[in-house]
Amino acid sequence: MKVISLLTDFGLKGYYVGAVKGVLTRICPDVKVIDITHNISKWDIREAAYVLSCCYRYFPSGTIHLVIVDPGVGTKRRGIVIKTKRYFFVGPDNGVLVPAALEDGIESIYSIENKELFLEDVSPTFHGRDIFAPVAARLARGINLESIGPRIMNIIFPSFYEPKIDMKNREVICEVIFIDEFGNVATNVKIDTLKRLNIKYGTKLEIKIQDKTLEVKLLPSFGYIDEGKPLALVNSCGRLELAINRGNAAEFLGIKPSDKIIIKVI
Amino acid sequence: MKVISLLTDFGLKGYYVGAVKGVLTRICPDVKVIDITHNISKWDIREAAYVLSCCYRYFPSGTIHLVIVDPGVGTKRRGIVIKTKRYFFVGPDNGVLVPAALEDGIESIYSIENKELFLEDVSPTFHGRDIFAPVAARLARGINLESIGPRIMNIIFPSFYEPKIDMKNREVICEVIFIDEFGNVATNVKIDTLKRLNIKYGTKLEIKIQDKTLEVKLLPSFGYIDEGKPLALVNSCGRLELAINRGNAAEFLGIKPSDKIIIKVI
Amino acid sequence: MKVISLLTDFGLKGYYVGAVKGVLTRICPDVKVIDITHNISKWDIREAAYVLSCCYRYFPSGTIHLVIVDPGVGTKRRGIVIKTKRYFFVGPDNGVLVPAALEDGIESIYSIENKELFLEDVSPTFHGRDIFAPVAARLARGINLESIGPRIMNIIFPSFYEPKIDMKNREVICEVIFIDEFGNVATNVKIDTLKRLNIKYGTKLEIKIQDKTLEVKLLPSFGYIDEGKPLALVNSCGRLELAINRGNAAEFLGIKPSDKIIIKVI
Repeated sequence: MKVISLLTDFGLKGYYVGAVKGVLTRICPDVKVIDITHNISKWDIREAAYVLSCCYRYFPSGTIHLVIVDPGVGTKRRGIVIKTKRYFFVGPDNGVLVPAALEDGIESIYSIENKELFLEDVSPTFHGRDIFAPVAARLARGINLESIGPRIMNIIFPSFYEPKIDMKNREVICEVIFIDEFGNVATNVKIDTLKRLNIKYGTKLEIKIQDKTLEVKLLPSFGYIDEGKPLALVNSCGRLELAINRGNAAEFLGIKPSDKIIIKVI
Repeated sequence: MKVISLLTDFGLKGYYVGAVKGVLTRICPDVKVIDITHNISKWDIREAAYVLSCCYRYFPSGTIHLVIVDPGVGTKRRGIVIKTKRYFFVGPDNGVLVPAALEDGIESIYSIENKELFLEDVSPTFHGRDIFAPVAARLARGINLESIGPRIMNIIFPSFYEPKIDMKNREVICEVIFIDEFGNVATNVKIDTLKRLNIKYGTKLEIKIQDKTLEVKLLPSFGYIDEGKPLALVNSCGRLELAINRGNAAEFLGIKPSDKIIIKVI
Repeated sequence: MKVISLLTDFGLKGYYVGAVKGVLTRICPDVKVIDITHNISKWDIREAAYVLSCCYRYFPSGTIHLVIVDPGVGTKRRGIVIKTKRYFFVGPDNGVLVPAALEDGIESIYSIENKELFLEDVSPTFHGRDIFAPVAARLARGINLESIGPRIMNIIFPSFYEPKIDMKNREVICEVIFIDEFGNVATNVKIDTLKRLNIKYGTKLEIKIQDKTLEVKLLPSFGYIDEGKPLALVNSCGRLELAINRGNAAEFLGIKPSDKIIIKVI
């Protein structure tokens, strides 16, 4: 039995998710399709790349991660399959697959070009259903990677902002990469940056967002502070996150994805 | 292994979807339940009929399409099973199943009346759980269609607005049938109408919506025009659709389902 | 084949649901994971307990109900497994599992303490993924309950408001426990209370909410009254519910969860 995970920006209102799952199940009847999410902000490649990178590794080895966040659908952008150490990644060549695939270790990349694998009629607006889903389902059935199309050596890398670390002043200029439905604000600061700056549980941090400044402590979890109070924590994806115990930090801070944050040890 | 697709207006907040899936799995343990959507606008039979007609055909032959959009629940409206060439459709007799079933080719229709198939206690407000789900699950187990209830020859047809085509002026008066979460505006104009009017990629169209007029070209996909610009396209369900590349056409046009649109070749 | 149902307040936007399902599937490849809902109001133990109690019983015997609504995550609150007559319940010891487990009949309770069952790195903010999911998946694989941790005799009971019944005046002071996406307003009045007060279909009720008063009849279902008119009914979970035929009762009444309602037979 093969697992296909599904990550899209389709939303849950239309026929899009149903059609993709129908195709997957028709071509590979014993596949297990697992939704990651369909609520990626429309066309937001960075958000999709972050969400994928936070959960791909929890799936069984051999899982096919099918990602359809595809603002360039119908134009000449390529579709690709990336084989990594433990997984397959299928989706558009726009950077969305790269952070997860790199972390797992890329072994080979194929350009999706073999039209025999596609549905008979390919809609120019729905490659998810007509190209990516049939290719993912055929991978689940065990086709050769070589039959997908030519092996390629170059793919598009996403232009992610890297945090700027000032070791002397123990300061990081970073960016909001994700706000979840609790209002927790994930940054692009990873746990190794915290280690380099010797930030530990209990360390006080000054947070500057636009013209606001607040002080928080790095704490293990929400419940270590009174309800309604802000804290910093290492989130379950290994990123520095700003939160409010039982509150909505994003609303409180008036902050949105891509906003810059300056974090200083005090 | 049998597939049951599930299309409802339950939303995703309550216990409704969980209860239906529980019943399906209890009665037919090896069934594969695939969500189409649960976010049909409440009681919107037309929207549900459109979404079903756009994706039913991608499922494996033998799939049981279970549709619960049922404003008349608890009254004397019938429940029905329609056997078509390749599928089974289960739901209320209110027109919601008809467009998809007609397209696939209706072979026989049964009125759901055999109470032995129902759950022991039938709630007057939740036939989805207590009547439709057990019937669908028993179909998945292979019961005889005759055991469901009497074969019937008449069902309720939905009152869908048909586009009015003026061949001389190359004009169509049509209607919005669906707005997806991207804000794309699907009309009830099918691809054969476009062919009759000799509308092709590149053809300029004048679009009149209430007191607004705009000009668009029919293009293959979003990426064929600059970001923020409007276009017309044939959507992945074969309907004429108004869209904005990386924008929300419905918001821009101030338009909602059932609004009338006049489209003229210029 | 084992079934795990999943009930959380994660929402559907982040990587949370995907990560949990990945873990479940990796540890127990042939498990069938069925979503109840992920849209429980954040940290709302009462709402989650109600939704669980309304649908747990429709699942196959042996189903593992995994509930992650966990405002105390990362603090010293316990994780528990409750074995009932027909099911297993896994989640935090905060009362969320209790109403359903009590109804089915509690046989034994275990404190989740055996770290060998957990994922290697336990995030203090995501016990759902790192502790509860692996324990649920291992239950699905058939581990001994004794290997989970010590058997315990006390758990936290939820502080639910019980309706106050005034038999002489045929009056109940009750509370809103759930508002679904149709705007139907479920109260904590159960069907046996209605029987004690001799409330039947057709009985007129005076409903007082804050400074508003309205009269409704108890009717079997929505369609027994004209569109736009209010009614009372016994909902599909056996509770007294206020509704409007094809309308939104919660909006109309300006009411929200936990609001008090006085219901009087007239």
